[in-house]
Amino acid sequence: MFKSANCISLLTDFGLEDAYVGQMKAVILSRNPTAQIIDLCHALPCQDIQAAALMLHASWSFFPAGTVHVTVVDPGVGTCRHILVALSAEQLFIAPDNGILFPLIEEQISTQIRILKNPTLFATKSSSTFHGRDIMAPAAARLASGFPFAEVGPVVEPAACVRLHLSKPLITENRIQGQILSSDHFGNLRTNIREADLQCLAPLAHLRVSICGKQLSISKTYAETQPGALLALLDSAGYLEIAVNQGKATKLLACTVGETVAVISI
Amino acid sequence: MFKSANCISLLTDFGLEDAYVGQMKAVILSRNPTAQIIDLCHALPCQDIQAAALMLHASWSFFPAGTVHVTVVDPGVGTCRHILVALSAEQLFIAPDNGILFPLIEEQISTQIRILKNPTLFATKSSSTFHGRDIMAPAAARLASGFPFAEVGPVVEPAACVRLHLSKPLITENRIQGQILSSDHFGNLRTNIREADLQCLAPLAHLRVSICGKQLSISKTYAETQPGALLALLDSAGYLEIAVNQGKATKLLACTVGETVAVISI
Amino acid sequence: MFKSANCISLLTDFGLEDAYVGQMKAVILSRNPTAQIIDLCHALPCQDIQAAALMLHASWSFFPAGTVHVTVVDPGVGTCRHILVALSAEQLFIAPDNGILFPLIEEQISTQIRILKNPTLFATKSSSTFHGRDIMAPAAARLASGFPFAEVGPVVEPAACVRLHLSKPLITENRIQGQILSSDHFGNLRTNIREADLQCLAPLAHLRVSICGKQLSISKTYAETQPGALLALLDSAGYLEIAVNQGKATKLLACTVGETVAVISI
Repeated sequence: MFKSANCISLLTDFGLEDAYVGQMKAVILSRNPTAQIIDLCHALPCQDIQAAALMLHASWSFFPAGTVHVTVVDPGVGTCRHILVALSAEQLFIAPDNGILFPLIEEQISTQIRILKNPTLFATKSSSTFHGRDIMAPAAARLASGFPFAEVGPVVEPAACVRLHLSKPLITENRIQGQILSSDHFGNLRTNIREADLQCLAPLAHLRVSICGKQLSISKTYAETQPGALLALLDSAGYLEIAVNQGKATKLLACTVGETVAVISI
Repeated sequence: MFKSANCISLLTDFGLEDAYVGQMKAVILSRNPTAQIIDLCHALPCQDIQAAALMLHASWSFFPAGTVHVTVVDPGVGTCRHILVALSAEQLFIAPDNGILFPLIEEQISTQIRILKNPTLFATKSSSTFHGRDIMAPAAARLASGFPFAEVGPVVEPAACVRLHLSKPLITENRIQGQILSSDHFGNLRTNIREADLQCLAPLAHLRVSICGKQLSISKTYAETQPGALLALLDSAGYLEIAVNQGKATKLLACTVGETVAVISI
Repeated sequence: MFKSANCISLLTDFGLEDAYVGQMKAVILSRNPTAQIIDLCHALPCQDIQAAALMLHASWSFFPAGTVHVTVVDPGVGTCRHILVALSAEQLFIAPDNGILFPLIEEQISTQIRILKNPTLFATKSSSTFHGRDIMAPAAARLASGFPFAEVGPVVEPAACVRLHLSKPLITENRIQGQILSSDHFGNLRTNIREADLQCLAPLAHLRVSICGKQLSISKTYAETQPGALLALLDSAGYLEIAVNQGKATKLLACTVGETVAVISI
């Protein structure tokens, strides 16, 4: 069910200005010298569990079967919160039990979840402030080199794991009302409205998107509008996105996370 | 002519705050689990094709023969613009046909160029906004694992590829007039004047550099001036650079990209 | 005494917005195609030798025996300053002789130090501004692939290497007076007071920390205080740290590097 590809992904809110990510990698290679370590991202907003959950959910399917994912956004580090290891679609996911894995659990992608308790997987001496380095990285290294998933610790029921309240759009027969979830490096605004939500309403060509008083049809590419023009399109994760061709929607629209986005059929 | 070293370099304008680079790497490892993936840089200014072309041109020669380079600055993503694969000095270069490869083509480093058309190289399902992940990364993974270059698609003539208008210095018998192209992390100002341009004018010791009303001789190292002093020297890519010893030229000089830099023989 | 694990760590002040780090990696792979290259950090403040020394000292022990570390903070690049290779606890450390290795030397972790002089280890053509790429990276690649440490150049006595004046706390019978050394991505303030210093004074539960007029006991985890509350705790490197649970101490306290931190026994 899990056959390691010796690939380990790291997703954290650590940033890159300190040695934290480098120390995690050092710990991994000390236990598993041939691991392929992939940085998924280290720029999650500090302590933002929802951002971690959404990025992991949008990205895991691109990884090889047999990948071990380590996701560390961990405001409860050192307390009695559990660390989970979830088997999901032939990949393993290690994360604190704080909601990070909830989207995978909710969609039943995670088929078995265990609590990481086996101390032979931990560093000999563990700090109480950096379990990413002292517990999750060594466990990932060992699991990626063949340590059996069944031995990480006791099974926990999905319903017993911490849930996350994810903002979801309101969908009625004629209208979807969602919101801006986040922005990216290009100044694109990501919404919580999925392609499947739109298709239930009407074919994309028959939809109009409203944001900040602007009405937009749904484009296929950035370049099909004029440079500097606002547009709506489906992003590479399958969500409705508001963008500007060769510009930044975050600058053109004075709108922030939480702003309402509506879609109607015409 | 191309013998893969299974090394793949990535150069993009994606930044590191999103999952875009991580997803490209996941796609590569899914198809080529032992690839060595090197981040050349992901901080190119958004949509800045010239910056991509110059950085690639300054860096490719340090890579092993058999490297596959993927460069993604792609404002035309999803439109009918082509994606090119160029064989150049025993390395392969994958990039949109928007000028990124022009310096390699102009200097005849690229000896054969093909259009990436073979759909067996693409992801099964491709977005129209992220060809770096869905087309270029999978093609790089396959080429690095031995897929024949001859089968990526039809040959295209160099002259048919998109040209880039690169700013070049004006060179007369007694004087070179160039400009500031960019600045780096250390606040050093890079010009478009090359070492070979200078050597045609006079030996370096007989040259004087003018910028913002300052006259500078050409130093060999940062440390041969006083800390805080402005200096000119040749940077590690062979271009004339304006710098401050243990300081930032971008701060000391109130000058910006495009500022004139003149060199005269004394 | 040194048996290579073919793992190379990089620690620099180069940032990630230029091609400098990518070019170093390209040079390494050109000479050693199977090296595992780990980014320890590239965000050291420019020319900050003390920051490099402290980060290397806090991190080296997590790496596998047989690692080669390359640390480049090098304001004297191109001058007659030496480049050192130090054998320390079965790892090799390459750095300019400017104090970076001083903490390892002072604690006698480095048992043999040589001057990097053997030109067969350098790039064929070396710039005078980028010895990280042209001298240290190729030497690391070769050492990691088995080139004998004994042949890098002549032995130098530890006492002959450049010393670093490290700020250390004043310790008296009843009181430790230290200072803020730096802050991290989470806005945590790191002091120069070590766990061992505290334990000499009294058990942790009997200590009080003073900073900017606030009195703090020493917590074990961030989460044992209220969100937004200031706390003191031991960081993952074993230093006393001032932090805010789910917030930033750098914002809550208007204090900067150098600020006094006192610890008394109650």
